[in-house]
Amino acid sequence: MSHVIAADIGGTNIRLAIVDPQGQIVAESRFQAELSRHAETSQATAETHVIKILTEAIKPFASQHGANRLGMGFPGFFHGRSGLLASSPNLPLLQDFALAERLSDTLGMSVTVENDALCAAIGEQKYGAGQGRANLLHITLGTGIGSGLILNNIPYSGEHGMAMEFGHLCIEHHKGRLCGCGNHGCVEAYASATALIKRFTEICQCEIADARSIFEQARQGYACALTITNEAGMYLGMAIAEAVKLLDVTTITVSGGLSGGWDILHPALKRELDNNLIPPLKGKVDVLRSRLDDNAGLLGAATIARST
Amino acid sequence: MSHVIAADIGGTNIRLAIVDPQGQIVAESRFQAELSRHAETSQATAETHVIKILTEAIKPFASQHGANRLGMGFPGFFHGRSGLLASSPNLPLLQDFALAERLSDTLGMSVTVENDALCAAIGEQKYGAGQGRANLLHITLGTGIGSGLILNNIPYSGEHGMAMEFGHLCIEHHKGRLCGCGNHGCVEAYASATALIKRFTEICQCEIADARSIFEQARQGYACALTITNEAGMYLGMAIAEAVKLLDVTTITVSGGLSGGWDILHPALKRELDNNLIPPLKGKVDVLRSRLDDNAGLLGAATIARST
Repeated sequence: MSHVIAADIGGTNIRLAIVDPQGQIVAESRFQAELSRHAETSQATAETHVIKILTEAIKPFASQHGANRLGMGFPGFFHGRSGLLASSPNLPLLQDFALAERLSDTLGMSVTVENDALCAAIGEQKYGAGQGRANLLHITLGTGIGSGLILNNIPYSGEHGMAMEFGHLCIEHHKGRLCGCGNHGCVEAYASATALIKRFTEICQCEIADARSIFEQARQGYACALTITNEAGMYLGMAIAEAVKLLDVTTITVSGGLSGGWDILHPALKRELDNNLIPPLKGKVDVLRSRLDDNAGLLGAATIARST
Repeated sequence: MSHVIAADIGGTNIRLAIVDPQGQIVAESRFQAELSRHAETSQATAETHVIKILTEAIKPFASQHGANRLGMGFPGFFHGRSGLLASSPNLPLLQDFALAERLSDTLGMSVTVENDALCAAIGEQKYGAGQGRANLLHITLGTGIGSGLILNNIPYSGEHGMAMEFGHLCIEHHKGRLCGCGNHGCVEAYASATALIKRFTEICQCEIADARSIFEQARQGYACALTITNEAGMYLGMAIAEAVKLLDVTTITVSGGLSGGWDILHPALKRELDNNLIPPLKGKVDVLRSRLDDNAGLLGAATIARST
């Protein structure tokens, strides 16, 4: 089989890799590229811009490695497995955009596209801590919170490709913190990197560069950092309990930048999870740290490319 | 095809019916029977008691109508489609009880059993407001709150048969009302018949016979009843929003005794649902009152009997 190329697309970063069938990344490339430009005024120019950026990044890498098949995780909602982008919160001009088809034309290869968070779940199940589990809820704790669900070995995306908006589960219904989605009290407003940094600035009244530094302070016993990280762990545990009460899925995997604070987050998370489950499910849920660091999405992209 | 008998089993009531393939109930019988007796001390005697009660109720009715196939909704968690009862909150002595098999032996007919709330969802999709919808979340508002989910035309029961514990979604995480499950703040503690009557007694400081009377008072404009029913509608809307954020299922049907207060509950429910959804799902969710009154479970039981 010829090589498969995997792409993980973020708002400002593009990662490309050649992944072998054992899930090893044998070549990799990273680019900074703004998919969303303020200059765009119509869907047509926004489409052209996105296709141009992606093609210019992917084509040389694909030629170099003799790849003729692309799998891609992309931040947006898709109509089923069609590769038709229904919408994307970061790219509001794009509606019902035939992303996979257009990209297939410009690249001259088969293209399979899936929601980025669902792609990470697929990668985690195939190669990571979710191996051998038919049902899996995967959570990516990064700038925001993404989530993907596998049910009975099939990626689940819902009626509009919008399933598993786990980051927007509401924990504080009445006086919760404002979330990027416009609602209040979402778990993302407490337990994403953005939220941690914001909380730190507010509570500790000083600036901090990144979430990693907050975890470091917590490890050193600083009360302020402990308060914030404990709160993040608790809120994640509460939100996972809500998901488990609905789905009765008992393997949860967690990846992304914040999983670097696992030693700090996990105890509070586990305690609140067990507190909030219904009695017969208490103690039955495994919350596992990803073994794939930030590669789950890339490995999922390779998996969907191979499965089509 | 010979007749199919449908059974809907509650804690103190047994309903039996002959249902024709068009979903019409052509004969019906109701019994009062206590499945749970305090006298039981072992799983063996509890099993014998349950089988005896069910057989004595069902056998004569089946003979009378020439039925040779039984479908049954039963309050408990089942291992997949096996008819093996994993556990039942109301019958704690029963664990891994081969309910369908034992009953099939005593009745001399094929027996298919499913969780009662999931049975109601199956009935609602086949014959009720969920007809033609491949994905459906059905909520039964009665003494407690039950819920069942159909995904892509397949009833979904989770890894332990415990999926869709919708009634135990938590809306008030910190200082919520005590729920029967032992946790605080579950939607069932605000929006079940039991909760409404309890709230009325507390807030209005007088006794009331049933939830129907509370809705009647609300219709007449009494502030106290309006507060309670408005709260129930709001909390239901918030809980449905959480389920939709995870599942991206946009048909919700509601049955059970409290659906008689639809005119009171629905406006508050709909408002809070739309307030709490993520922006791209706002306005996309249909919350429909069941067309089957309290027959959804019976019709679902008939459906599972026919489909095996």
